[in-house]
Amino acid sequence: MDNFRFAMPTKIIFGKDTEGEVGEEMRRWGSRVLLHYGGGSVVRSGLKGKVEQSLAQAGLDFVELGGVKPNPRLSLVKEGIELCRRENIDCILAVGGGSVIDSAKAIGIGTPYDGDVWDFYEGKAEVTETLPLGVILTIPAAGSEASNSSVITKEEGWLKRPVGNDLMRPKFAVMNPEWTYSLPPYQTACGAADIMAHVMERYFTNTKDVDFTDRLCEGLLRTIIKQVPLALENPEDYASRAEIMWASTIAHNDLLSTGRQGDWASHQIEHELSGIYDIAHGAGLSIIFPAWMKYVYTHDTARFARFAVRVWGVEYDFDHPERTALEGIERLEQFFASIGLPVSLADAGIDSNRLDEMAAKCTDDGRRTQGSFVTLSQEDILAIYQLAL
Amino acid sequence: MDNFRFAMPTKIIFGKDTEGEVGEEMRRWGSRVLLHYGGGSVVRSGLKGKVEQSLAQAGLDFVELGGVKPNPRLSLVKEGIELCRRENIDCILAVGGGSVIDSAKAIGIGTPYDGDVWDFYEGKAEVTETLPLGVILTIPAAGSEASNSSVITKEEGWLKRPVGNDLMRPKFAVMNPEWTYSLPPYQTACGAADIMAHVMERYFTNTKDVDFTDRLCEGLLRTIIKQVPLALENPEDYASRAEIMWASTIAHNDLLSTGRQGDWASHQIEHELSGIYDIAHGAGLSIIFPAWMKYVYTHDTARFARFAVRVWGVEYDFDHPERTALEGIERLEQFFASIGLPVSLADAGIDSNRLDEMAAKCTDDGRRTQGSFVTLSQEDILAIYQLAL
Repeated sequence: MDNFRFAMPTKIIFGKDTEGEVGEEMRRWGSRVLLHYGGGSVVRSGLKGKVEQSLAQAGLDFVELGGVKPNPRLSLVKEGIELCRRENIDCILAVGGGSVIDSAKAIGIGTPYDGDVWDFYEGKAEVTETLPLGVILTIPAAGSEASNSSVITKEEGWLKRPVGNDLMRPKFAVMNPEWTYSLPPYQTACGAADIMAHVMERYFTNTKDVDFTDRLCEGLLRTIIKQVPLALENPEDYASRAEIMWASTIAHNDLLSTGRQGDWASHQIEHELSGIYDIAHGAGLSIIFPAWMKYVYTHDTARFARFAVRVWGVEYDFDHPERTALEGIERLEQFFASIGLPVSLADAGIDSNRLDEMAAKCTDDGRRTQGSFVTLSQEDILAIYQLAL
Repeated sequence: MDNFRFAMPTKIIFGKDTEGEVGEEMRRWGSRVLLHYGGGSVVRSGLKGKVEQSLAQAGLDFVELGGVKPNPRLSLVKEGIELCRRENIDCILAVGGGSVIDSAKAIGIGTPYDGDVWDFYEGKAEVTETLPLGVILTIPAAGSEASNSSVITKEEGWLKRPVGNDLMRPKFAVMNPEWTYSLPPYQTACGAADIMAHVMERYFTNTKDVDFTDRLCEGLLRTIIKQVPLALENPEDYASRAEIMWASTIAHNDLLSTGRQGDWASHQIEHELSGIYDIAHGAGLSIIFPAWMKYVYTHDTARFARFAVRVWGVEYDFDHPERTALEGIERLEQFFASIGLPVSLADAGIDSNRLDEMAAKCTDDGRRTQGSFVTLSQEDILAIYQLAL
């Protein structure tokens, strides 16, 4: 186990009818709120109205900025920063899923910063200050509600880049599983892939002696595998929606990273895909992760066999552990397909035309590598895209 | 799943050589430190010297109060409160295990309080203020380093009582597994029983649809079952000491309580035992928990069968689930015995003389019950003590 530092300061307020508490919570952090959200679904569902009521009851002023899209864009972030400065906003409330929260985080760090907010995403500046951020979560997937990171896409060149800093963790997250009832099946499935990917990026590690966090990862993956089909079958099943929602937070708040190095190659490889083709991040992950696994599993067959046995209940083949390992990858792929996700580029209608371009972008034209479980070059990444065809 | 609120604000600083960071961390919280500890082991091990050096380097003044005993006493707490007031102490550093931390928490809430600190433990006053507390953990067991609770024993009548409030969570906890190498085998084993009990108190619940936290509980228990024998065999095995130490924190920081009601009867039943006989809390738990299980398992045979299968790897008996349930309890008892813990009152040299007295104290002479998985009367508790003979 490696040395580590960990805290989970984000206050989670979880369960039925909790959205009414948002005004009181927000009041601890400011008086002029940017209310940030995506499309019309939070209006249609009635959530936005309830939130506005709660803010008004707490005596808070707010200014709205909607229109966040999946793979949230730099241009809207910049608009938000201008708005916050102009309106003397002192705190942000994000109502939505990971895209809205990531966009809000970007606005939060960009508002007090003199330079271009994209500097943070290019690694040219360090985050030292942010507007405080509260969240009402409506899509369990990204884990951004308690994570320290944000991913933004710059339209010019379709560059998708992450930044992370503990100051960026939301102050609180209100999570009522009932607001996830209306998620379309495809979005529920994409969320499942995202959650599982967050765990698997941490699970496949070269760090030795991480038995405890391994077991937490395995338990979380089994929860998703069991509960997501139930939620797809009955979208208003509170029990399964609640399990998925809470698991999504723990999958990405860094508890499962404690004492171990993560890989994160698949996320980077996927970012080029959804950056260019604008497919859902979860759908990109369901394509890339099995391909990555097939490419790297011989690096540590025992870990992949463990994954197969502990997560998927595969019987261990003592004579041929590699068969067990491959069976685990196969089961993951079958699971993704069974919940309606693409598991190949062809499934997503993507051909081989731009694989070279993506492999080049993912490695800065071969100047950097990706991954730590296995270090991947531009050539390796191209091979993984090809495996995913 | 029930509604819940959760945060884990305690900053964990985990790993080798981390004790040198304590001065810098402490400086965020005050300038005059009460250095609180137990016996001579932290002196002999050299840890106290390192801590003093780190505090001095950070420019902090400190006053010492040693002498905390297992089942920490109210009289020393009162001495600490007087000392803090006299010396204008503004923060506390606890170096030790659960007893030292619980004692420090009591001093922390007692110092700014006008009345008798025991009021908090009797439920006569609510905690609204505390001195900030930092921890250097040397015994993984109680989980007090990130928990919101403290248990103190009042010598007059040997009353052992808990109090809990989120203000009481330590600000940071420095955890270097190397400082646990010198723990005697018996104390390592008592710690294991305490950690497992914290999980089992949460695991045996009537709350339905808690699949995710069930799995986290099961993973944590399996970690302890695997790692504790390794640490006993090789006390300087960093890997197993680290797994045990991190698991002990997560066992009791309330992550495993999220959305579910805990039981806690066994802890209360044990408190009377270690209150009167002054045996180690962990040893009391290894006696009481199996007896409690035998008394209550028919209330939810399926949950006990799950415990047997998922935690102990027992093969499920589809024709006779109750046999599976009982086999799980048997395995727990065998495990405790295998690591050198008592599993009956006789093992601890305790006879039947004071069972009535303990059952009466535990229920305030029958005026209150214990437990929520099964509600236990004075009579039930007496029966559990008798089962433990």
